[in-house]
Amino acid sequence: MRPYELIKAKRDGQVLAPADIRAFMDDFTRGVVPEYQMAAMCMAVFFRGMNADELGAWTQAMLESGDVLDLSDTPGTKVDKHSTGGVGDKVSLSLAPLAAACGVPVPMISGRGLGHTGGTLDKLESIPGFRVDLSVDDYRRLVREVGACLIGQTATLAPADKKLYALRDVTATVDCIPLIASSIMSKKLAEGIDALVLDVKVGSGAFMKKLEDARTLATTMIGIGRAMGKQVVALLTDMSQPLGRTVGNALEVMEAVDMLKGCAPADYTECTYALTGQMLVLGGKAKDAAEARALMEDAVKSGRALKKFEEIVTAQGGNPKALHDYALLPQADRTVQVPATHDGFVTGIDAEALGLAAMALGAGREKASDFVDHAVGFVLHKKVGDSVKVGEALLTAHVNDEDRLEDVVRRVQRAYQTGPTAAAKVPLVLETLR
Amino acid sequence: MRPYELIKAKRDGQVLAPADIRAFMDDFTRGVVPEYQMAAMCMAVFFRGMNADELGAWTQAMLESGDVLDLSDTPGTKVDKHSTGGVGDKVSLSLAPLAAACGVPVPMISGRGLGHTGGTLDKLESIPGFRVDLSVDDYRRLVREVGACLIGQTATLAPADKKLYALRDVTATVDCIPLIASSIMSKKLAEGIDALVLDVKVGSGAFMKKLEDARTLATTMIGIGRAMGKQVVALLTDMSQPLGRTVGNALEVMEAVDMLKGCAPADYTECTYALTGQMLVLGGKAKDAAEARALMEDAVKSGRALKKFEEIVTAQGGNPKALHDYALLPQADRTVQVPATHDGFVTGIDAEALGLAAMALGAGREKASDFVDHAVGFVLHKKVGDSVKVGEALLTAHVNDEDRLEDVVRRVQRAYQTGPTAAAKVPLVLETLR
Repeated sequence: MRPYELIKAKRDGQVLAPADIRAFMDDFTRGVVPEYQMAAMCMAVFFRGMNADELGAWTQAMLESGDVLDLSDTPGTKVDKHSTGGVGDKVSLSLAPLAAACGVPVPMISGRGLGHTGGTLDKLESIPGFRVDLSVDDYRRLVREVGACLIGQTATLAPADKKLYALRDVTATVDCIPLIASSIMSKKLAEGIDALVLDVKVGSGAFMKKLEDARTLATTMIGIGRAMGKQVVALLTDMSQPLGRTVGNALEVMEAVDMLKGCAPADYTECTYALTGQMLVLGGKAKDAAEARALMEDAVKSGRALKKFEEIVTAQGGNPKALHDYALLPQADRTVQVPATHDGFVTGIDAEALGLAAMALGAGREKASDFVDHAVGFVLHKKVGDSVKVGEALLTAHVNDEDRLEDVVRRVQRAYQTGPTAAAKVPLVLETLR
Repeated sequence: MRPYELIKAKRDGQVLAPADIRAFMDDFTRGVVPEYQMAAMCMAVFFRGMNADELGAWTQAMLESGDVLDLSDTPGTKVDKHSTGGVGDKVSLSLAPLAAACGVPVPMISGRGLGHTGGTLDKLESIPGFRVDLSVDDYRRLVREVGACLIGQTATLAPADKKLYALRDVTATVDCIPLIASSIMSKKLAEGIDALVLDVKVGSGAFMKKLEDARTLATTMIGIGRAMGKQVVALLTDMSQPLGRTVGNALEVMEAVDMLKGCAPADYTECTYALTGQMLVLGGKAKDAAEARALMEDAVKSGRALKKFEEIVTAQGGNPKALHDYALLPQADRTVQVPATHDGFVTGIDAEALGLAAMALGAGREKASDFVDHAVGFVLHKKVGDSVKVGEALLTAHVNDEDRLEDVVRRVQRAYQTGPTAAAKVPLVLETLR
């Protein structure tokens, strides 16, 4: 079928043949199918969706538009984790060393922050000297020798997805579950993994605000994984408030290191253990979540997990001393306590609003070309369920640009909701889907 | 709103503000809004539609993207007719002189044939010397002095529509009623008319195959006209078989002249009278259809209608003698009778298939750059309801290219359906909408 006929068929709710999808995507990547035809197709997909076969072909075409890394020289089951993004989500920083310390090789290609959500690469780069732009050869070597490597997207991995994402971003076709799922999976499967754990965030600070949408996205990605012969497990986790107590790049690194030292907040610790535990099971290192938990706690208590993070940091050019002396990490000029304006209990923290407040402080990007200030951010003192009195500090803001402070204080105070009674606790892991 | 937000709002079923639509269309025309954003918007409109206010703004923005002709130097109510296109539809050729002969000025900007439908310009150009590429000044002058002028689209009329139509044509967003309606109306309103009669064809040979769709298109165009302060009347007319007895450019000119001489087939005569009659009422020359009918019949009987056509032809550089001596019109090398393959009654003629057969003969274009052979085409001897015997001529094909003949004969024979009993006659005018 010609591109025109394919667009029309999708528009009219017909099922497209995998070979036609493949040719359409290949021609789009080569510039033979113009962007306006792909834009029309994406909008038609927004309204009509894709079934499992169509989505498998769509994802595979994007995956095979570039290099698919071969990590077969590393023995064992390579497992990665992908998060759909949240506020204060520094899980990758503790999960990768922890899984590697337990014997599961972790090849991890991550992204940068945009809008209210942070990015793993920005957080890592707050460690002095840490490089995320390693070559594919170095990446492959470090996965084999160190057990984990965390780098940025390369130009040769899933270029179709890169081109398509840029187009979706300007044609209002980003928030479409089949297109989100295929974008994530095409990138992740290009890393050379054998299995994948998905962290689908749900709530005010997440892309998926509703549990039902998160569930649909998770099952869609699991379906794509299955079509590609990869094991995929998805956890739906709460993002109705920021994860842990820090938001901001260097501050989140400190909290991640605290996790590996066994002294991080309960919600973040729980999230790391839950996701890493699934990786250990998929990687054949534990038969179930309980056995995995025992292995992980031992890796933390024995100091092996922290030591693995030091190895990773050293291998990627960073200064491992910064994991012990946080003063070696970027520091903001001053800290400011943001006081509560009401008595009562914290009943909610609008994670998206807090993420945008951190962005306003300089911790994140409004557009891709923005500069990120690694030092700034928040340390939260009050989370949902905590009692609070007027004037008491909700959080400490780490600030470099005084001009932004007034706006940020207002945003923080608006992001905190208080009420007369403590809200019921929401479990961190809402569902596990296989 | 930025283009992205507008696309998203339409995608999500929201109503767009007229000012936003205006800015979006203006920026598209100037190339500031890229084609991929307009493609996504059109697909969103396909699924979500537009309400009357949105469609008014959309049409007005296209209309005002170029020149809007001013015919105020011609006294009286200027009225045009637009047909959505059919097979054998030569109504404009008889209607324009007839209306002008009855005192209604007719400024008519027409199109060329594409696919199975013919175009008024191609038909006119089969008259030796006839020019359709007059300047706007000449057009204005001839409307004033002769009472009618028939020319082609100019580059300065509704350029946004031209650009948009080319994009819709490759993104499967042509067959979308609000986009069709706004495209037609933006071009027609740019002509400088005061009122418009629409001929919305329904049936196998028309763009609208179903009465319901034709009705929706008609009411949508009437709504746009009302929003622009123009009177619009729409007739839904039958196109389940070709109109009249000729298909092909010069052959249709002969039939049009026959109509003005009072000796054309009943269905075509009826169609011309019905549409022209509405023009006379809108133009204030008759108080109702009956009075209009009397005026028109008098114009035909007295020879004034034919004389007006001679004047038009002469004014536009054509040889008026061709209206009396058809041998002066292009003639095909030979004529071939296409015999019936079954006994019985003609129960249907697939007008689209017959139009495509005429195209295969050279009478029409597959693509815009194709050459048109004015001489070739069909003269139908059998129409729906007629009895037929095996071997009897269904039609006479006027042929220049022998190589195409075999295929064309097969197409014609397949286009005719026969059965044991005569089908009930379908009225020509199915509905009148105001």
